[in-house]
Amino acid sequence: MQAEIITIGDEILIGQIIDTNSAFIGKALNSIGVSVYQITSIQDEKDHLIKAFKEAEENADIIIVTGGLGPTKDDITKHTLAEYFNDTLVQNDLVLAHVEQLFEKYITTPISDLNRKQALVPSKSKVLMNKYGTAPGIWMEKGDKVFISLPGVPYEMKALVEDEVLPKLVRKYKRPYILHKTILTYGLGESAIAQRIEHIEDQLPKHIKLAYLPSLGRVRLRLSGKGNDEDVLNKDIQTQVENILPLIKDIFVGFEDNNNSIEQIIANQLVKTNQTLAIAESCTGGKLTQTFTQHSGASAYFKGGLVTYATQSKVDILGVDQAIIEKHSVVSEAVAKAMAINVREKLNADIGISTTGNAGPTKGDSDAEVGTVFIGFATKEGAKAFQFNMGNHRERVINKTVNKVLELLQKEIFEN
Amino acid sequence: MQAEIITIGDEILIGQIIDTNSAFIGKALNSIGVSVYQITSIQDEKDHLIKAFKEAEENADIIIVTGGLGPTKDDITKHTLAEYFNDTLVQNDLVLAHVEQLFEKYITTPISDLNRKQALVPSKSKVLMNKYGTAPGIWMEKGDKVFISLPGVPYEMKALVEDEVLPKLVRKYKRPYILHKTILTYGLGESAIAQRIEHIEDQLPKHIKLAYLPSLGRVRLRLSGKGNDEDVLNKDIQTQVENILPLIKDIFVGFEDNNNSIEQIIANQLVKTNQTLAIAESCTGGKLTQTFTQHSGASAYFKGGLVTYATQSKVDILGVDQAIIEKHSVVSEAVAKAMAINVREKLNADIGISTTGNAGPTKGDSDAEVGTVFIGFATKEGAKAFQFNMGNHRERVINKTVNKVLELLQKEIFEN
Repeated sequence: MQAEIITIGDEILIGQIIDTNSAFIGKALNSIGVSVYQITSIQDEKDHLIKAFKEAEENADIIIVTGGLGPTKDDITKHTLAEYFNDTLVQNDLVLAHVEQLFEKYITTPISDLNRKQALVPSKSKVLMNKYGTAPGIWMEKGDKVFISLPGVPYEMKALVEDEVLPKLVRKYKRPYILHKTILTYGLGESAIAQRIEHIEDQLPKHIKLAYLPSLGRVRLRLSGKGNDEDVLNKDIQTQVENILPLIKDIFVGFEDNNNSIEQIIANQLVKTNQTLAIAESCTGGKLTQTFTQHSGASAYFKGGLVTYATQSKVDILGVDQAIIEKHSVVSEAVAKAMAINVREKLNADIGISTTGNAGPTKGDSDAEVGTVFIGFATKEGAKAFQFNMGNHRERVINKTVNKVLELLQKEIFEN
Repeated sequence: MQAEIITIGDEILIGQIIDTNSAFIGKALNSIGVSVYQITSIQDEKDHLIKAFKEAEENADIIIVTGGLGPTKDDITKHTLAEYFNDTLVQNDLVLAHVEQLFEKYITTPISDLNRKQALVPSKSKVLMNKYGTAPGIWMEKGDKVFISLPGVPYEMKALVEDEVLPKLVRKYKRPYILHKTILTYGLGESAIAQRIEHIEDQLPKHIKLAYLPSLGRVRLRLSGKGNDEDVLNKDIQTQVENILPLIKDIFVGFEDNNNSIEQIIANQLVKTNQTLAIAESCTGGKLTQTFTQHSGASAYFKGGLVTYATQSKVDILGVDQAIIEKHSVVSEAVAKAMAINVREKLNADIGISTTGNAGPTKGDSDAEVGTVFIGFATKEGAKAFQFNMGNHRERVINKTVNKVLELLQKEIFEN
């Protein structure tokens, strides 16, 4: 059972927006046993759409199209889909009522004919009601194949996939199971890991694949399997995990899955052990705090994050001693420790974490080399700080530092 | 002059990672007058790669392939490219020396044969040296067309595009100019805007296109043009901008370009007017602070951000009066104002901003409905707060709130 995702919009091709829809749809389809054969991004141009529809129909059973459903003239997906199916657009009264209701309830400008045209759909289609927006999803079958057109606005698309598309696909098709298990490691390169587990990789059963995903100091090892019996597949993957784990014991930090990123693994452990966290950030500029607070439930363990970006704010807000800063510079082990200790105390948390460093490209308030980062940790047992060089690329320095904090924190809370 | 981007990796198709490389490459190619015809994401599978290469060669002059260049067995791009060109892999001594040097300088594990194999490249290729990693870029010509293979690691790919690919493409091909101008608006839907400027849209010259990009309370209007004379093209787009602006005066907030997101427009204005900013966040959890600090140069105007996530931290860190919280609840106009006033004073800034609200999905420390958000503003003239309902989707509440703050802040600092 294969799918192709077609995302439509000039804004993707000129790099004005990043296509996040495909990843969401890919993951969603995988969860019901559908593989994605290809993702194709094209512009709002009729001939190109028709060509993409044709090619997708040759290779895939399920074709999901996102974007190009807005009310303005640059949006042509609906018309092109109708043409591809030799169909015409007709008014759907349910959609019209829904559009009118949305305007009454949420939108301050009066409804127009352009908005009412959102209720036009191909006559051969089934409508998927879009509770968050005016553009309906469209479901069109051709023999055993199905074309599904969805709005490009991420939260509208997501709701339609979850509430309408997945349940309908599950009813329509018999599908195998696809399972992934991702092992998270820190501190060793992919080729060094590959050498350690070479003999296991060479003997993997045919229905299980291994992939290496290196990123900023981490390598994720993903085992993916496909099969008709979920229990057997689960067991087969588990067997390989148990073969691999003893060989990477020193670098293993946990498993990652759809609902369990590394920060969520840490969050769960903090809640379980009844510990709280407070963060004082400088060079990471709020990214570390946001890594935790982006997930709901953070208030169970997260006390707060103080982004003391300017040097003076480290004194004013965190109460770091001015003399320490003058003696050691603001990017130093001593300041990192003081920040961690003070934020822990000020926010009455069990664990205090700090970052101070030069993310670059210029040196800022310190003479430390660009890329120099100190990470501080404080608990009731005391404080320590670690020094790193994260390279000379601002975004990378920030992200590598966040990853490094997660690595250290994970080790800290699971080993103690 | 057209390009196709092919990104390779199972991790993209199963939704484990979001493909950000394509957007970067699309933008970079546009900047030298090359249009992207299609972006195609496929798995690490030889036959599929060959098929994609063939199709891309039919439609594009420039084919850029990212990913699949790692040292492990799941990476097959280099071998497949050699096969597609009827070529064999040979050792490149410069690359080998570079790989050995990287291991000596930065990598703690000893170099292995797997790592040395990174120096194998197709004999007919030119090598693009990858200063940040072991996988070289590969440049292979076929008649007038060129295939360029780049590593999938974003910062390695980015450096190769900027330092090697763009200069070489500029030397090799004569290209037209592509220009985009994006008008940023807040507060009106795309169809309402479309109606206002309908007569202008209908009379656009053929070489200029207009697109609407709605997102979380904003609509961006993008004018894109293509032509052989940069000055003429610039003038043609400017003419359309001047036609449109008077019709959307009330919702216009600025222009966005590659190097000028809305927060950077605000940042520049703050620096120009010698004003500083401090932020106290609750429901946005650090995202707002990070929006500013992600860009270098923030220390010129950004004093700090206090993420007072737990209710008690609003008292302990910001000094919000416990009685106000008890009387009005933590999600209230009074608390938003107090947070803004206090963060402004504590961090000695000209402008204090605050957010407090329920991002959901559960209600947290307040009885306010999920989606309720208050944004507070304080200057030396006094404080005010605004109430919004941002809907019931956590990520969307956070992002909409950040956008709304930027909108309010922009109006505030440009109008005063």
